[in-house]
Amino acid sequence: MSDKQTALPGLHFFCAREVEGGAGDAARLGHKGAYLAEMMKIGLPVPPGFTLDVDYSARIRARGAFARSDLERLRTAISCLEEESGATFGDADNPLLLAVRAATRTAQPGLLPAITDIGLSPRLIERAVRAGHDETFLWDCYRRFLHAYGMHVAHVPHELFEDILEDYKESLGIAEDHALAATHWREIASRYMALIETEDGKAPPDDPLEQLATCVTAAACAWDAPQVRAARKLYRIPDDWGAAVTVQCMVFGNRNDNSAAGVAITRDPATGEKIISGEYLPRAQGEDIVSGLRTPWPITEHERRVSGLDHPSLETAMPEAYAALLKVAARLEKHFRRPQNIEFIIDDGRLWLVQTFNARLGPAASLRVAVDMVREGLITREQALCVVDPDQLEKLLHPVLERAAGQTLLARGLGASPGAASGEVVIDAQEAAHLAAAGRPVILVRMETTPEDIPALKAVRGVLTARGGLTSHAAVIARGFGIPCVAGVGMMEIDATAGLVRIGGNEIRVGEWITIDGASGEVFRGRMPTRQPELSGDFHTLLQWADEVRRLRVRANADTPHDAEVALKFGAEGIGLCRTEHMIFGTERLALLQELLLTTDNRRRREALEALAETHGEDFIQLFSIMAGKPVTVRLLDPPAHEFLPRTPAETEELAKRLRLPPERVRARVDSLREYNPMLGHRGIRLALTVPGLVRMQVRAMLEAMLRLRAQGKAPSRLEIMAPFVMAAAEMRWLHRQIAQVVAELERRHETVPPFTVGCMIEIPAACLRADALAEEAAFFSFGTNDLTQTVLGLSRDDAGRFIHVYLEQGLLKVDPFVTLDDEAVTPAIRLAVERGRASRRNLQVGACGEHAGDPRSIKLLARCGLDYVSCSPYRIPIARLAAAQAALEMAETMGTTPPAAS
Amino acid sequence: MSDKQTALPGLHFFCAREVEGGAGDAARLGHKGAYLAEMMKIGLPVPPGFTLDVDYSARIRARGAFARSDLERLRTAISCLEEESGATFGDADNPLLLAVRAATRTAQPGLLPAITDIGLSPRLIERAVRAGHDETFLWDCYRRFLHAYGMHVAHVPHELFEDILEDYKESLGIAEDHALAATHWREIASRYMALIETEDGKAPPDDPLEQLATCVTAAACAWDAPQVRAARKLYRIPDDWGAAVTVQCMVFGNRNDNSAAGVAITRDPATGEKIISGEYLPRAQGEDIVSGLRTPWPITEHERRVSGLDHPSLETAMPEAYAALLKVAARLEKHFRRPQNIEFIIDDGRLWLVQTFNARLGPAASLRVAVDMVREGLITREQALCVVDPDQLEKLLHPVLERAAGQTLLARGLGASPGAASGEVVIDAQEAAHLAAAGRPVILVRMETTPEDIPALKAVRGVLTARGGLTSHAAVIARGFGIPCVAGVGMMEIDATAGLVRIGGNEIRVGEWITIDGASGEVFRGRMPTRQPELSGDFHTLLQWADEVRRLRVRANADTPHDAEVALKFGAEGIGLCRTEHMIFGTERLALLQELLLTTDNRRRREALEALAETHGEDFIQLFSIMAGKPVTVRLLDPPAHEFLPRTPAETEELAKRLRLPPERVRARVDSLREYNPMLGHRGIRLALTVPGLVRMQVRAMLEAMLRLRAQGKAPSRLEIMAPFVMAAAEMRWLHRQIAQVVAELERRHETVPPFTVGCMIEIPAACLRADALAEEAAFFSFGTNDLTQTVLGLSRDDAGRFIHVYLEQGLLKVDPFVTLDDEAVTPAIRLAVERGRASRRNLQVGACGEHAGDPRSIKLLARCGLDYVSCSPYRIPIARLAAAQAALEMAETMGTTPPAAS
Repeated sequence: MSDKQTALPGLHFFCAREVEGGAGDAARLGHKGAYLAEMMKIGLPVPPGFTLDVDYSARIRARGAFARSDLERLRTAISCLEEESGATFGDADNPLLLAVRAATRTAQPGLLPAITDIGLSPRLIERAVRAGHDETFLWDCYRRFLHAYGMHVAHVPHELFEDILEDYKESLGIAEDHALAATHWREIASRYMALIETEDGKAPPDDPLEQLATCVTAAACAWDAPQVRAARKLYRIPDDWGAAVTVQCMVFGNRNDNSAAGVAITRDPATGEKIISGEYLPRAQGEDIVSGLRTPWPITEHERRVSGLDHPSLETAMPEAYAALLKVAARLEKHFRRPQNIEFIIDDGRLWLVQTFNARLGPAASLRVAVDMVREGLITREQALCVVDPDQLEKLLHPVLERAAGQTLLARGLGASPGAASGEVVIDAQEAAHLAAAGRPVILVRMETTPEDIPALKAVRGVLTARGGLTSHAAVIARGFGIPCVAGVGMMEIDATAGLVRIGGNEIRVGEWITIDGASGEVFRGRMPTRQPELSGDFHTLLQWADEVRRLRVRANADTPHDAEVALKFGAEGIGLCRTEHMIFGTERLALLQELLLTTDNRRRREALEALAETHGEDFIQLFSIMAGKPVTVRLLDPPAHEFLPRTPAETEELAKRLRLPPERVRARVDSLREYNPMLGHRGIRLALTVPGLVRMQVRAMLEAMLRLRAQGKAPSRLEIMAPFVMAAAEMRWLHRQIAQVVAELERRHETVPPFTVGCMIEIPAACLRADALAEEAAFFSFGTNDLTQTVLGLSRDDAGRFIHVYLEQGLLKVDPFVTLDDEAVTPAIRLAVERGRASRRNLQVGACGEHAGDPRSIKLLARCGLDYVSCSPYRIPIARLAAAQAALEMAETMGTTPPAAS
Repeated sequence: MSDKQTALPGLHFFCAREVEGGAGDAARLGHKGAYLAEMMKIGLPVPPGFTLDVDYSARIRARGAFARSDLERLRTAISCLEEESGATFGDADNPLLLAVRAATRTAQPGLLPAITDIGLSPRLIERAVRAGHDETFLWDCYRRFLHAYGMHVAHVPHELFEDILEDYKESLGIAEDHALAATHWREIASRYMALIETEDGKAPPDDPLEQLATCVTAAACAWDAPQVRAARKLYRIPDDWGAAVTVQCMVFGNRNDNSAAGVAITRDPATGEKIISGEYLPRAQGEDIVSGLRTPWPITEHERRVSGLDHPSLETAMPEAYAALLKVAARLEKHFRRPQNIEFIIDDGRLWLVQTFNARLGPAASLRVAVDMVREGLITREQALCVVDPDQLEKLLHPVLERAAGQTLLARGLGASPGAASGEVVIDAQEAAHLAAAGRPVILVRMETTPEDIPALKAVRGVLTARGGLTSHAAVIARGFGIPCVAGVGMMEIDATAGLVRIGGNEIRVGEWITIDGASGEVFRGRMPTRQPELSGDFHTLLQWADEVRRLRVRANADTPHDAEVALKFGAEGIGLCRTEHMIFGTERLALLQELLLTTDNRRRREALEALAETHGEDFIQLFSIMAGKPVTVRLLDPPAHEFLPRTPAETEELAKRLRLPPERVRARVDSLREYNPMLGHRGIRLALTVPGLVRMQVRAMLEAMLRLRAQGKAPSRLEIMAPFVMAAAEMRWLHRQIAQVVAELERRHETVPPFTVGCMIEIPAACLRADALAEEAAFFSFGTNDLTQTVLGLSRDDAGRFIHVYLEQGLLKVDPFVTLDDEAVTPAIRLAVERGRASRRNLQVGACGEHAGDPRSIKLLARCGLDYVSCSPYRIPIARLAAAQAALEMAETMGTTPPAAS
């Protein structure tokens, strides 16, 4: 056979005698061709066939037709299949039928065409019937061919074929397909033929080889069909993957009553329980199940009982085939080490496999299967860690919707923070905060949110916004607080005067109930039950394994004692980011910050600072006490000035009243503080440099909290003082002088100040480029990847929305760099900083905080940059722990070493 | 003597017998001590002395007093001076007097104290007089000591001493000091003594050594005196330079009628003519000249004639001393190869030198001297190139004010664009443009300017703004147009209703004349004559030498044929930046750009594009024709969207009218285009990606202009198409596809499209980091150093004003990074990009355009980054040529090689 293969370049056989390729060749052979070859290789019952590889298929697609040499090659290949199957293509005595299926490198059911039952014609059927073959079966096969050909070659809408079949059955008063006789199928076939001739202008060829060539060409060309292109964009399948075309001998689930077609999953996809599940149909082909036109029957007795269907299960109807299926399932799981989704055919009692791919499981099931498979000895712990998608874990932490029919879906926006919640619509943030504080279930509905809404966001059950995406203010804050958020419901309008919200044609009055699903982005009218998923033992087991493998430590972004407790519960090893400007909530904080920024009176500024320091004090003591022995990185005040300024004349008026200042003065000051590019403006340590006493006040509050804990005989956390938006080492030297003043002052009063370290955030390219100098003044770096992405790419997160979709659509960017770290320029900047920083301070501690630190793909990139830890919002800690483990395993694999035993 | 020196660490002698140190030791010995030693070494007549070096002086300053061991050391050192001079410190028979002078490493006349005539006391004088010494001379010396001691040690205001002297002379009816007799000086000394005792609580010590120790301590401590600290900040003298203290034997210009003190400059400081100039006073000490209390006499007969003074010149009064001075001057010039500023003393007919430093010359003089000295064989061409300050050159290109007494100085702002102009005040930009077009001399007076004012700025004589600094919009545009600008006149208010401008207490009505000096920042009421300096042959000679030496090519930023012609006149070798968005001026351009940005109607956008392309066409043809054979880099449209949006409801209303759109729609669209961080927003190639057809339209206009020129048989320029704000190679690939479309289209019509190259601006750190990938798609890089500074430092130019002064004051930044390129992080980013870019494309052409490219210090840094060219505004081209030559010479020196013979 090998000489035939060399004679047939671009064609790859999977036959009993020889198999070329396997699961590893999906990129070349398509997922289907590669996995059929793999199953064939391990001795599973697979009908023989061959695959035209991606390159060969691309050449056919480019030409749009078969050349004579292609036909020759195809004829030679078929002769091999004839040899193997004992049947002959186009022969009436023992006809060989073929199926053609296109496939790309990952399993994408339904994306690309399948054309079955190739090789028949009315004349051939007549001769075959005369030779003793079953007439009903043959006409059934032929009408199936016509249907598939019509759809995929002649591009006739498939409803037209279904209409013909339904109308005809109705005219006969027959409900079930298998009650139709040969004459009926023949009539249907002739009507199908007439439809194709009308729509396509010509009939399908009768010549089997010509049929096959036409179908292979259509399958190869389908990759560029408009609806496939659209779907590829949706599933983010790259253009250059292309598709292979597999030609396979048919086996027949529609041959007789001892035949069936089915789909099975080797475990329960909802729970992960080790029980085969799925559906089958007797006297059917796979298409009958996939199309959804016939209600399939259950595979197991267990499923039959649960579903309450009275059709017999495969288990009772075909016990031998069922037993064979169980054996095959076990063999597949053992081989692929993942639950499999199998398509099978029972042809006159004999089981055949025509497809297998990794089953897609829900989050809980995925977790359970991974842990179970380790216990069953099927996979190692390391493999278990790699099969669970970290993003799925988050779904286990948030309430989920108990769906039921009859709910009014108002809109579908972006699922911006997972979880589900029902509550009363409130459109005013202050009112929302009040009502929520009074125990009322509130969903805050806004066009967009601003930092002034934070007190409300902290109190409500969920948030719904008209504007913004996954990285909008509402989304970021909601994820931080662990409440569900649906963002970007573009068609929503808020009519504050009328006190109602319009979504499409629906009106919802303030106070009415709505339900939002922050995972799916759905918004429903009314109240719907939600369920808080319990964290299974598997959850903890898997994360424990993750902890044993990962090198990257995981900390939390936490600004309050509550945050810190949640973080500890989820396994945080410290606090990597405590934003002091977030520590005081409510209008009080806003007033203090506004006073600090707006006043030019030194006394009042000092008072505002003192007040800020005092509110700090209590929180620091609690935070440091909760995190006893663990590191806590406190970031010096970094209020983005522009976010705290009043926007409207009315707000300015109100602020002036609160600050007891003339409105003109407040207006003038606000105008003078307004920035052209606030992102690159007066922020971070720049603010500290211009607001005298700010840093010293904050450092004093931290150190005094440490001293107080020590006086109480308590172990405090390890304090790390962090400067934001640092540009150069000179700023750090200035900071050290400020801190030294405070220490000297405290040392005059106390015996010794507890130890602490001083470091900085890396958010500016200059800091990366001069990391060597910076590391001389900083004990640690913490990458602020959001801001670093903005400065490295010259790209404002708040403004990118206007054009970034074009970049993604045109393939100029592979990912949204505010969701997943940009690996072209941002990670190189990080690596540069880490290398240069460690070159001048060998034990420099390096971490990252911010949104990316909770994104699994970004975590893996950060791990490769050599970071010591990531710090993410408390609810993403489990994800980070798992992603960190996967990163360690992937890196060990790349480097050919075994991962470390402990973190 | 050398054993004495080792015994006296920190003390360095300059004596006839041995000299330690020289001109190269100014950092350690102070400028004065180092240059005295140097002059001593080359055999010039210098009174002997020694210098307490900077470190030793710093130790004295730190202690604030002399230790016993210091006194011992001083005593030993004095004994050396006694040995050399033959006089004895504190001896009545042959008293040695000493002078103490502090100095830092550069010559800073008047910055630090000088205390002369140390070593006398009333009792010593009496004994000396008895021993036969001149009583008048001794009391004159003593009162000089008391005056200096009072000022610098006892900190008595110097006016009090002058008042005593003047009152006393008045009471005697004597006008001139030299008419005072011994008794008078004794009386004055006793009054001085009484004043010091009253103010300081104690009299100066009588013991000579104690006097000296006190004076040396005061001189060492002066470095940290408040007024010196303030002056240091003003002159940008770093804190860590410190000061050395020089102790020197006195020689006496006040000894007798055959004695004098004087200051001479070896060339005419105004014209550079080779003629000694300066002033002297007989029977005087140097202080008499420097203090300005006595009117000095001219040194040469020539000066006497020119000034019309009837005092005899040194030339006629003391011909031998004058002859000696001429010899000394020649010797000094030959040695230091720069015109010198000399302080000399004639002591009883003998010439002594007590100070020399490089003379400060005006721009024209500086140029002439450099060229002359080459001709005289004193310096090489390379040395000549290094002694002229490139910044001074610019002063030669712009009109200068003919100053006269009696002018009302209204204000002093920032000299933001050099040159002087008189004109009528206009406060409305449109009116200014109209009046100027009608030939009226207009000075535009605005709070600040915006891009809408550009047509006016192009037409007026000068611009005056209340806000903004050296890098404000008005300043940048004015420098580009070569018109004078005074910016940042903070106390100016514009009352548009009343039609007047208030500056301090003055009111200027619209239409009244004012005069501005864009070099000094002065604003005068009324009209003042200005003079257009002629460019001397020396100017061209020096720049020709510069061209022979420099490696860096110099191009111009030019957007119009006029710009291009000016650029050629100043020696531009091409255009490095043609901003297509600047090509069309007047409201027409604004309307087209606004339409382009605001319309969502494809047809109208296309029309706006076509109109833009058409106006382009003519300009391109002219530009390409003027620059025949030279490169022209055309930047694709980069309108900073936010600058073109209307600001007020009235402007929106007007725009809506112009666009024939409903105002609500315009308002909504404007709101949707408003950006949070426009600097990092929807600009550069991002705009091209979202405005379909923009790039193709522009490229077509360029290529058609080239084709048209070829059809006319003319040689066009070398076209370089440049993409702005490029982030990644993928954007360039997209651009190439767009350009290829246009080329294919043109090739269908014409035979061949003329050759051109495609490159990009480097303004984003990502572009630097991935310069390797980018260079695969770009034939050239051009650094946009303004924007790159913003993104690398995370620093908005428009917002930095709020805090950057704190950075400069606190020494956290050495220079304003928007004036001189930041050498900490921005040049490393540039070097990284150049290295990586050239690694993937060996012949990558690299340049820089923008403001920094016209700043001499930045040009030197850019040269070190390995750039091929810089591109600056036409008026800065001579500066760039000279700075480039200096860069080449400095680099050759660093690398120990000779500079290239030709560019």
